[in-house]
Amino acid sequence: MALSDAPLLRALRGDRPAQTPVWFMRQAGRSLPEYRELRVGTRMLDACLTPDLAAEITLQPVRRHGVDAAVFFSDIVIPLRLAGVDVVIEPGRGPVFANPVRSADDVQRLTAIDPADLDGTAIAAAVKIVTDELGGTPLIGFAGAPFTLAAYLVEGGPSKEHLQARAMMHADPDSWNRLAGWLGQVSRRFLEIQRDAGASVVQLFDSWAGSLSPADYRAFVAPHSHAALDGIGIPTIHFGVGTGPFLADMRLDGVADAVGVDWRQPLDEAAAILGPDVTVQGNIDPALLGAPWPVLEAHVLDVLERGRAARGHILNLGHGVPPETDPDQLTRIVELVHSR
Amino acid sequence: MALSDAPLLRALRGDRPAQTPVWFMRQAGRSLPEYRELRVGTRMLDACLTPDLAAEITLQPVRRHGVDAAVFFSDIVIPLRLAGVDVVIEPGRGPVFANPVRSADDVQRLTAIDPADLDGTAIAAAVKIVTDELGGTPLIGFAGAPFTLAAYLVEGGPSKEHLQARAMMHADPDSWNRLAGWLGQVSRRFLEIQRDAGASVVQLFDSWAGSLSPADYRAFVAPHSHAALDGIGIPTIHFGVGTGPFLADMRLDGVADAVGVDWRQPLDEAAAILGPDVTVQGNIDPALLGAPWPVLEAHVLDVLERGRAARGHILNLGHGVPPETDPDQLTRIVELVHSR
Repeated sequence: MALSDAPLLRALRGDRPAQTPVWFMRQAGRSLPEYRELRVGTRMLDACLTPDLAAEITLQPVRRHGVDAAVFFSDIVIPLRLAGVDVVIEPGRGPVFANPVRSADDVQRLTAIDPADLDGTAIAAAVKIVTDELGGTPLIGFAGAPFTLAAYLVEGGPSKEHLQARAMMHADPDSWNRLAGWLGQVSRRFLEIQRDAGASVVQLFDSWAGSLSPADYRAFVAPHSHAALDGIGIPTIHFGVGTGPFLADMRLDGVADAVGVDWRQPLDEAAAILGPDVTVQGNIDPALLGAPWPVLEAHVLDVLERGRAARGHILNLGHGVPPETDPDQLTRIVELVHSR
Repeated sequence: MALSDAPLLRALRGDRPAQTPVWFMRQAGRSLPEYRELRVGTRMLDACLTPDLAAEITLQPVRRHGVDAAVFFSDIVIPLRLAGVDVVIEPGRGPVFANPVRSADDVQRLTAIDPADLDGTAIAAAVKIVTDELGGTPLIGFAGAPFTLAAYLVEGGPSKEHLQARAMMHADPDSWNRLAGWLGQVSRRFLEIQRDAGASVVQLFDSWAGSLSPADYRAFVAPHSHAALDGIGIPTIHFGVGTGPFLADMRLDGVADAVGVDWRQPLDEAAAILGPDVTVQGNIDPALLGAPWPVLEAHVLDVLERGRAARGHILNLGHGVPPETDPDQLTRIVELVHSR
């Protein structure tokens, strides 16, 4: 099958392929024993920057589950590391930055780096290995959205309600817009590297957007996410967690071909909000991965049914695969979806 | 002034007192240096169960800020501790339970405890000290809502998306309803102890309700929160975080005299959803407590203005006071609100 006829790409164009395409956010890594074995002794960001390793981790879930797409194994802070920012992933905690970006001076210093200077060699090499093996299965490139990256950078690490980043929007909007604008360009460059090396779709992840009011999302975030994706030239998926109150804005004025919906909002309601020009992605409740199969099965069928309300549907979870997930539950979901 | 004429109680009845009443969730503790001094060497739950200490911590913010209400210094897991459950608060982490409640047997064992047997002696003693000193200023009693308590109990500690508690709802609804029903009665008993000792208002906190879909909230949570408050005989406030998508349900069929709104939803929009029979509480964005005063001042005035759309308004934050808050910002907010 030609790549352009792959169910994922057809669904992104608004077609209804015979089988609904399915993949899982965070399918690469975490829940797979073959991943944990491979990662022993390698730090997270080093693994992302070792082409053979990143490629193998990306391919593992495609082989195991038979999903309709690979998603590039990486981390949202990788482009920052490639830009020279001092960041590590602390196991059990998350990304930690040596120098939080809090003042106007901090922002000036950071944004003096030209996003065009990001060294994409290791990323491109990994993507090439993956796409050579995948053949007709699409690879989804991956980047964090500007707000989520800023939430980490301004705090210096993970935080619950991202108070400092959200304070900067109102206390010093010029610095905020400079920072978020720069992050949008950094994420865009990261996506372009993946696209140029062979990725055929990109997804922008805004994990923390749900901490924002709709008004703040529109004024301080959406324009920068828009700039990260606008005109990238391949199909785009835009996903955020807790974005129900401003879901229509997640379309980014038509730049998103698909909008990801979290587990809280039924897909038929989401489709009614999103309108006829966008494909929906989602939204199995990750909590139900731990339920007995008949309970999970009924839920998956309900998600499939509600997804019919949209122009196209990519089946996925409503958030990433939890680390403790039994991988067999994911394989069963793929089999169920492909059997309908 | 008689307690019944206090601005808080008038606002809860739907009156518009000359000054909008103001208090802050988590005003007792955390951000106050006099609290941190007092707490040295005492573990959190021990402090809650030492009447002199709990009373003093409850009174500190009333003296310092001149707020219109005290909120009883306690923790949502205190009634569980009083029921004999082995729980500690780990600093920097949160409540940790020695025995997570995951199976039907676990639920049976726990719910065999009769909520009527909770020993309220220490709580009643602290409330008595507080209300004797407060005079005409109301004391708000405090309890966690059944879902938030269950989210901790089932996981055994804090978690991001409360997967195990939410899985139990679908995998074993009987056990879930037994557990949440019991927790509703435990929280109710805790509120009754505070009421009987002199609290004149109660607030039920559902910190984690925002992880639920509206359908799950309605089916598995609202009935148990309703039972915790129904017929308690004094005014009630019901607050949750991220409950925008099911805000109308937070009224609990008229049992809530006021509904708390988080920082994401403008109060005029919330009032339109909640209707004419409920007072709103909220909703200063805690992120803006870190902004320069003119930015915060403009935000507080905007919140006051939008609050006029409701039948009554209690000014508060949209979530608890962050630990790093400069207490002078809180005092300034009280002065500003009282000057209007």
